[in-house]
Amino acid sequence: MQTAVSEDIETNKSILAEQIRNCKKKGAELVVLQELHNYLYFCQTEDVSAFDLAESIPGPSTDFYGALARELGIVLVCSLFEKRAMGLYHNTAVVFEKDGSIAGKYRKMHIPDDPAYYEKFYFTPGDLGFKPIDTSLGKLGVLVCWDQWYPEAARMMALQGAESSDNENEKKRQQEAWTISQRAHAIANGLPVISVNRVGFEADPSGQTMGIRFWGHSFIAGPQGEILALASSSESEILITDINLTHSESVRRWWPFLRDRRIDAYDLSKRFID
Amino acid sequence: MQTAVSEDIETNKSILAEQIRNCKKKGAELVVLQELHNYLYFCQTEDVSAFDLAESIPGPSTDFYGALARELGIVLVCSLFEKRAMGLYHNTAVVFEKDGSIAGKYRKMHIPDDPAYYEKFYFTPGDLGFKPIDTSLGKLGVLVCWDQWYPEAARMMALQGAESSDNENEKKRQQEAWTISQRAHAIANGLPVISVNRVGFEADPSGQTMGIRFWGHSFIAGPQGEILALASSSESEILITDINLTHSESVRRWWPFLRDRRIDAYDLSKRFID
Repeated sequence: MQTAVSEDIETNKSILAEQIRNCKKKGAELVVLQELHNYLYFCQTEDVSAFDLAESIPGPSTDFYGALARELGIVLVCSLFEKRAMGLYHNTAVVFEKDGSIAGKYRKMHIPDDPAYYEKFYFTPGDLGFKPIDTSLGKLGVLVCWDQWYPEAARMMALQGAESSDNENEKKRQQEAWTISQRAHAIANGLPVISVNRVGFEADPSGQTMGIRFWGHSFIAGPQGEILALASSSESEILITDINLTHSESVRRWWPFLRDRRIDAYDLSKRFID
Repeated sequence: MQTAVSEDIETNKSILAEQIRNCKKKGAELVVLQELHNYLYFCQTEDVSAFDLAESIPGPSTDFYGALARELGIVLVCSLFEKRAMGLYHNTAVVFEKDGSIAGKYRKMHIPDDPAYYEKFYFTPGDLGFKPIDTSLGKLGVLVCWDQWYPEAARMMALQGAESSDNENEKKRQQEAWTISQRAHAIANGLPVISVNRVGFEADPSGQTMGIRFWGHSFIAGPQGEILALASSSESEILITDINLTHSESVRRWWPFLRDRRIDAYDLSKRFID
């Protein structure tokens, strides 16, 4: 689902709930929401009052979305502004099981910081590592936004048995580079990738910039990077597709990248090799 | 350059030399040849007599191509079947400096093995690691074929200061996945990528299969994954483009992936994390 949102959190949640119910009606078993779906993208400015938007996990939003997952019997991936303690906040994805319980959470690991995307002001880098979340539908490797650009992150998920990869995303300079990077994760790791982007225009509350037009184009790719479903650049939209895990098994036999990794020769935990 | 070749090594070398001279006439300073350019792709079958094609480095081919690099004043990237010792062979790229000297070599690290691509029979995995080769035109991160599919390999080159990445390639199931993987390397590492593929039909000497039609489509991508030049699927062809290293510097400022790598959280030297 990619869904344009407004300043009114309660209205946003109602719209999202209605759309999630529509997904279920269309047969979806797994529903993935965009990054920080409850509200506008508040990182356009650095504003201490925006910390009021954060909430604990579990908390009101996990109660709300957990109840929805239970009501519909779906696995649901949400994205929340987590208040872990006073002065300690994360950008956190929460995965709900079909019974409404929390299957696991992932705290965004790579935090960007650019003009109009002041995320380092708001979010402490995640400390839960790259761990796929076990669900009744398979192991989900959840990555958020800036994480999606890192081949290391996708590989870490695959090495821990991820069977599909969910991405929640909002920030981009070039849509094509964004798409290519994630299709390449699918290819390199023999995994389907579900990539959900924000959509629509959001003004800059500070008036310093022209605001951000999020470009949508959410997509689902198969384990060879092939596009299975693609949303528009401008409209709120629901994408539905079947994910065939047997096909992933076949692809990993045809393209046995894991067989031939040169683990003796990778030295990827250095900042730079001077 | 992508160049169809025949069974006649001397004719192949003459054609390649003529094409390299054409590159120079068109203004090229760096010329990159395809994988194992001197001969047909002999890995279609497992045949001990094919080891006769191998030669030492330095040896006759490095004399030949080194002289050409010196004559034309170009940096030249070749790909040879290296005989390191009796019973010890590698798939080795050799980079020549403008004065004809060997600037460095790279032994293919990831060796595939699939029906009609029996490379594990011929090539011992490289033991020189992923080290960019310093030339008067910049640091070249050379990767060969199966290597190109590994984000770890491209990242290793970037961490050691590679300023561009050269790929020599022949094997593929799906051209699109191949292209996407390498454009993603360019994006993730803020590097131009030069990717050279074989082209044309080569019969299976054993008659067991229908042979291989190599798909060409050699390309050069900029540091945002943008395609700068693209060759055809069927013809021998020379691609010429300018590579602007100042642009790479700008792109690494706009997309500071190296800044935000979570080196504390990558555990990529395990085979699998059970």
